[in-house]
Amino acid sequence: MSGDLGPRVAMLAAQKFAVLYNDVDLLVVGDEPQLLNLISANKASQNQISIVHAPDLVTMDDDPVVALRHRQSSSMWRAVESVKNDLADACVSAGNTGALLAISKHLIKTFPSIDRPAICKALPTAKDTTYFLDLGANINCTAENLHQFALMGQVLAMSSGAIKPRIGLLNIGTEKSKGTDIIQAAQSFLQDDARLNYGGFVEASELFSGNFSVIVCDGFHGNIALKSSEGTAHFIAEKVRRLLTKNWRSKLIGVFIAPLLKQLRSELDPSRHNGASFLGLQKTIVKSHGNANEKAFLEALVVAREQVLQQIPTRIQQQFLNN
Amino acid sequence: MSGDLGPRVAMLAAQKFAVLYNDVDLLVVGDEPQLLNLISANKASQNQISIVHAPDLVTMDDDPVVALRHRQSSSMWRAVESVKNDLADACVSAGNTGALLAISKHLIKTFPSIDRPAICKALPTAKDTTYFLDLGANINCTAENLHQFALMGQVLAMSSGAIKPRIGLLNIGTEKSKGTDIIQAAQSFLQDDARLNYGGFVEASELFSGNFSVIVCDGFHGNIALKSSEGTAHFIAEKVRRLLTKNWRSKLIGVFIAPLLKQLRSELDPSRHNGASFLGLQKTIVKSHGNANEKAFLEALVVAREQVLQQIPTRIQQQFLNN
Repeated sequence: MSGDLGPRVAMLAAQKFAVLYNDVDLLVVGDEPQLLNLISANKASQNQISIVHAPDLVTMDDDPVVALRHRQSSSMWRAVESVKNDLADACVSAGNTGALLAISKHLIKTFPSIDRPAICKALPTAKDTTYFLDLGANINCTAENLHQFALMGQVLAMSSGAIKPRIGLLNIGTEKSKGTDIIQAAQSFLQDDARLNYGGFVEASELFSGNFSVIVCDGFHGNIALKSSEGTAHFIAEKVRRLLTKNWRSKLIGVFIAPLLKQLRSELDPSRHNGASFLGLQKTIVKSHGNANEKAFLEALVVAREQVLQQIPTRIQQQFLNN
Repeated sequence: MSGDLGPRVAMLAAQKFAVLYNDVDLLVVGDEPQLLNLISANKASQNQISIVHAPDLVTMDDDPVVALRHRQSSSMWRAVESVKNDLADACVSAGNTGALLAISKHLIKTFPSIDRPAICKALPTAKDTTYFLDLGANINCTAENLHQFALMGQVLAMSSGAIKPRIGLLNIGTEKSKGTDIIQAAQSFLQDDARLNYGGFVEASELFSGNFSVIVCDGFHGNIALKSSEGTAHFIAEKVRRLLTKNWRSKLIGVFIAPLLKQLRSELDPSRHNGASFLGLQKTIVKSHGNANEKAFLEALVVAREQVLQQIPTRIQQQFLNN
């Protein structure tokens, strides 16, 4: 019901998802009259979609604590609850990140040996995918938290085919002496853990190099790195747009290179990489970007399905049992 | 003598700088035989350039503490010392950042009311310049440090023409409740300081928006934000290069849009924005990027000259006396 664009996007994506994958059933949780209205346009996927009514919703501005206390009748709460009660295998939401995290932690819980869930996203790189975590779930992290993030990220990387995923630790330099005490302590944990292929410190300039399968950091640093890269891409795109509309000659060039720009935009398209996982929880919860369009929301649904099929939560549990 | 490209770049830039500005005299500090060899090619600027011999150098890998203890005969030490002894108004170096900072703090000192110097850089934005600090001098900052950074950044912004520079505090969200305890405390200081036009929290995605004249953060966050943006720009440039060399048709397009790409590259050119200031010191010290080419090093020299003419250190001192 929430997200920047409201329930329409989620419903359209759900219908497309049901058509694409006939092995899935969908519970669409929210205000029933509104949702019934949205679904009527498309009959093909109807037998895979059930609507679950929820009279309330979590707004984008709700404080997570408020959501936790007063939003038990919200669509978000009920969707997560359906996962808790095994009515669903996974939950995807484009709503308030902090609230989704708080409700998920409360209802689903992390595995006993995992202190906190981490938000993890697959980054496009010059080579293979890089799994980057934490992206904002944990503002302050201990070295133990960072170590756990590495173990969880490794599971995702291996499930997508990496044999000995190279793990990097985000820092402001690659020399071994760099960084805060926490980062120094985390380095020791990662080096000493025989399960991990630790590759050393990574600077933020290397995020998209593809030299690491997993990059670990605290949620504050992850948020800054990712948002800074979004801002830069936007800044460059705006520069290009201005250059191409300056005069008739540049406009002509613009027409000429339109297919090229389209391809570039498609390769860098954030909607192709939508769907952040809350790793460490006992079930699959996927966060879609708040301003995700239909295509992007669909991508988040695909991520959730993949993680259910790959049994990511169970594999993470096993990873920690091997301690 | 140091930097990734050695003394040749600095000497070439110095000679060009002397030709461009006949109000400057230059002390080029380093290994005299090598420097004499480099200068011989150009006579025009010779009467503005003196060579000061230094038998040793700080390497890019030297630990700052080692540099401080054992590199008193290095070119870096002697260059900073010449500023301390009023033989020069400013020092520009492309060498080891940590060592330059340590030596500068040791020899030049900060003003009494300033705890630590901050590294500040002018970012290109969609509108005016944004002064961004700290970029790595201080890994851990107190709220008081961040407040001081704001006061120093304001001086730079006003010296470049901003009337009531809008000050932002880097955070992972714009809601007032977001961020660490330190950021929350810094927010109070900035809000309560009548000298400052505090504009609230800034997310890293807004770094290049031009909506703030000054953006303040601790050195760890600043380093991550800036390097992440460098990495993203590099990633996009590489994507474009690949697209333009894929087949004969894309190569033809590449030839056709070469002037456009050249202009784009020039507008985004990091060498146009080279020269980071160590604010808070009693004299002007400017850090050129380690891999600066001649043009970029020249830009750092221009920044240093401007800060001397604008009496930035004195203005910063006055800003803190108005407390």
